[in-house]
Amino acid sequence: MELIHKTMGDISPLDAKAMDAAAKRLDALLKPKGSLGRLEWIARRMAGITGEPVYRPSGDKTIVVMCADNGVTDEGVTSYPREVTALVAGTIATGLSGVAVLARQAGARVMTVDIGMDCEETPEGILDRKIRRCTGNIAAGPAMTRDEAVRAIRTGIECAHEAIDAGAWILGTGEVGIGNTTTSSAVLHALTGTPAARVVGRGAGLDDEGLRRKIAAVEKAIALNRPDPGDPLGVLAAVGGLDIAGLAGCYLGAASRRVPIVIDGFIAGTAAVVAAAMHPGAADYMFTSHVSEEPGSALIAERLGMEPMLRLGMRLGEGTGCALAFPVIESALAVMAEMGTFADIGM
Amino acid sequence: MELIHKTMGDISPLDAKAMDAAAKRLDALLKPKGSLGRLEWIARRMAGITGEPVYRPSGDKTIVVMCADNGVTDEGVTSYPREVTALVAGTIATGLSGVAVLARQAGARVMTVDIGMDCEETPEGILDRKIRRCTGNIAAGPAMTRDEAVRAIRTGIECAHEAIDAGAWILGTGEVGIGNTTTSSAVLHALTGTPAARVVGRGAGLDDEGLRRKIAAVEKAIALNRPDPGDPLGVLAAVGGLDIAGLAGCYLGAASRRVPIVIDGFIAGTAAVVAAAMHPGAADYMFTSHVSEEPGSALIAERLGMEPMLRLGMRLGEGTGCALAFPVIESALAVMAEMGTFADIGM
Repeated sequence: MELIHKTMGDISPLDAKAMDAAAKRLDALLKPKGSLGRLEWIARRMAGITGEPVYRPSGDKTIVVMCADNGVTDEGVTSYPREVTALVAGTIATGLSGVAVLARQAGARVMTVDIGMDCEETPEGILDRKIRRCTGNIAAGPAMTRDEAVRAIRTGIECAHEAIDAGAWILGTGEVGIGNTTTSSAVLHALTGTPAARVVGRGAGLDDEGLRRKIAAVEKAIALNRPDPGDPLGVLAAVGGLDIAGLAGCYLGAASRRVPIVIDGFIAGTAAVVAAAMHPGAADYMFTSHVSEEPGSALIAERLGMEPMLRLGMRLGEGTGCALAFPVIESALAVMAEMGTFADIGM
Repeated sequence: MELIHKTMGDISPLDAKAMDAAAKRLDALLKPKGSLGRLEWIARRMAGITGEPVYRPSGDKTIVVMCADNGVTDEGVTSYPREVTALVAGTIATGLSGVAVLARQAGARVMTVDIGMDCEETPEGILDRKIRRCTGNIAAGPAMTRDEAVRAIRTGIECAHEAIDAGAWILGTGEVGIGNTTTSSAVLHALTGTPAARVVGRGAGLDDEGLRRKIAAVEKAIALNRPDPGDPLGVLAAVGGLDIAGLAGCYLGAASRRVPIVIDGFIAGTAAVVAAAMHPGAADYMFTSHVSEEPGSALIAERLGMEPMLRLGMRLGEGTGCALAFPVIESALAVMAEMGTFADIGM
């Protein structure tokens, strides 16, 4: 727990002075006040995060993709078998997957991490940080021990710090893990008390019967493991996943280093809610990217007090939404750095 | 009218064969079917537009910005005086305005056109295609003659063709014109029959009293000019603006050359509705970018049968939304060209 406590201790509030200066500059720019909407909100938050009212990014953009398997697939809650996790993770490394293509397009790097895939050997090009091979079936017992959850969060913190040390000025989050919309629904249900039927969706494409099984599995997991909503780490251990825990660590790690971090979809958003439950200040360093099709997505945005930028009906995961959000954030920073003021034209 | 008729005659349906091939490829890519949501819709439409299932863009992206003044500002319906139009247009040319910054960030060019600004000399860096200095006050008479509307549409067609001939593979639309949310509301009201109160918004920042005046001006304009909803060109002449007419021409011009064209906000969206009313096939070549804060925005998206990509609460105009939409469209094309298939990994 030591690194986790230290990391949380390092999270400090946004720089209010820099945000005030940013707000003043935004109002002086050549446009009706507030007319750049969310771009202005992004520019102000970036000032608060970096401490610089006009921040010019340099270095990398890195999407950290946590890959893990979930024992709950035994309940028949997914459209794909467990083997697909390692296959898809492998295609990130070979540049063929969705996030690989979109990150390249956005000029971003991808750091792919095996934090718990159910495979003998971690595929080439993927960091081997396996905590265990696959979690337990949450509908039959806990996902993992408390110690494993701690180690997964620590791994996430370390990955975020490694990416930052390697030059990233912004991070994105993504995941690959068959069954992880089920574990995410269970975590959200446990943390927020929202009924399972409102946080469970069709994942990669379940039919009605599959959806019913998925809701039943989530309800069974909660009834059996009885996680305490006031103990986010305990919730992760009881009904979460290693990918969710790892991503929760990424948010804490980014916030502790005052680096912005973009949330992808439903699973990464669930991890963001967990991180914010562990340390409310972590949420200040987050940006939501898109609205996923999963019904729990709106709940996540509400809990984090943020509105997503993009509305593209995407539900692929992998961090794909982050790659599309990066240009929006870079555009907000360009507005701050390059737009003229009314004073510039003598008004 | 000759060029307009010829241009409309050149508009042909999307290439169904290319779209089918694109749909097949999208389903073969390494992802659950449909999981890239609107990106897949964009990729399919781009196939229909270009005739190539896998289209690799080369050349420029160009945002055409139509600048004009509106006599209706005499009614006290705006937050800024008329002189601001030419000032803002000038800042596009000098690279200081919102669209100048965002276009640069997106690697796009801006073509700024004086199609009717109320200034003696067109500022440097802006194309002089002035039809007349400012329109008439629509609350006191017609905006312009039918012949002037024809000439403005023709100018828009010519500008689109010039940008394409200079190497643009995609166009964006933007405008600068104090008073043009009022004329746009009047055009939408006239064309769709939607009550003025539902299509009139606060523009660049009106207070309640200003909003009431604006609704009254729109109602007066319609009662006085009695435009025929079945005659879009007549609607433009009666209650429109030179910027709206010019942009309507841009949509027709792009469609006639099978080039995609992105709609910015409320005014550019109104022009898109006009173009689609003149030739329904023109709508197939359009992409919406963002939801503007103006209440008529949702109506426009509905009329064009499209959902916007971005949700940023922007209301600056100038074409700023297009600059943010270009990377999304380029990302959709990258998905088609670069993502692997299930067959690639032996599945």
